[in-house]
Amino acid sequence: MDSIRALIREIPDYPKPGILFYDITPVLGDGPAFRELLDRMVEPHQDQGITKVAGIEARGFTLAAPIARMLGAGFIPVRKPGKLPHKTKARKYDLEYGSDALEVHIDAASEGDRILIVDDLLATGGTAAAAVGLFDEMGGHVVGLSVFIELTFLKGRDRLGDLPFHALLEY
Amino acid sequence: MDSIRALIREIPDYPKPGILFYDITPVLGDGPAFRELLDRMVEPHQDQGITKVAGIEARGFTLAAPIARMLGAGFIPVRKPGKLPHKTKARKYDLEYGSDALEVHIDAASEGDRILIVDDLLATGGTAAAAVGLFDEMGGHVVGLSVFIELTFLKGRDRLGDLPFHALLEY
Repeated sequence: MDSIRALIREIPDYPKPGILFYDITPVLGDGPAFRELLDRMVEPHQDQGITKVAGIEARGFTLAAPIARMLGAGFIPVRKPGKLPHKTKARKYDLEYGSDALEVHIDAASEGDRILIVDDLLATGGTAAAAVGLFDEMGGHVVGLSVFIELTFLKGRDRLGDLPFHALLEY
Repeated sequence: MDSIRALIREIPDYPKPGILFYDITPVLGDGPAFRELLDRMVEPHQDQGITKVAGIEARGFTLAAPIARMLGAGFIPVRKPGKLPHKTKARKYDLEYGSDALEVHIDAASEGDRILIVDDLLATGGTAAAAVGLFDEMGGHVVGLSVFIELTFLKGRDRLGDLPFHALLEY
């Protein structure tokens, strides 16, 4: 993992002053590092009977879609409001100032589905908790949440209850 | 391909009146169909020495990222303005009314890279042509453009010059 960590680019004051952003694009752009990252993220979920992998717009798509393919599962996009063309279910979540929302298609999952949610980052956990809530409402079983990077000081993990959680790297 | 075509959902008047939108999410969401789609998109590019696969935000990510993994290549996100954290190169392109732009990180590709551009759809070809232009400027060699669906009546292919082009489905 040291070789992957070494590729992550730290960008101060992005997207706003005081935030240190971890840019994963150099990892994605390096064929062997991208492969190793995906292999390691898939490993804990090989034998869980996962039928769908949900990715959170847009960076989450870059990890969730290949992981879906590697698990032989379908891929579900979880998007910002207004981006999905068919009927959707929405769920709001709080930001530091104000709120935002996530949407999924109403027929994206159904009872009997075993869903793995994948994102690049776990920060405060608001986005992840909203995604879990959406799939719970649809009757799908959320098997776990898997992220590349966890910002442990933001304690997002505390918002996930007893949902199985994996992070490859911690900061 | 008939089983894949049957899964595509036609949505009238989206994103605006008079447009018939082809919703590919039911294909992505079906494990066996998603696998077949990706296998067929990868097939023409197996032995082309591709080092990077570029995906165009955001639907393009869902195909480009798994294709990069399948080819052992890196993945490059091509994004709307302001979404990439590091220094970028930008290129404008014309829309029916007004214009839009795409950006890539300035170090996303370099001379010697062999780049496959992947998107869900070829419509007028403006977005694809802008992406090709960006990588040409960086010195990378664009090996081809591969899309899931081509709207042939919009003649986007004419804007690609002699760039090798593959589409799985035509409407």
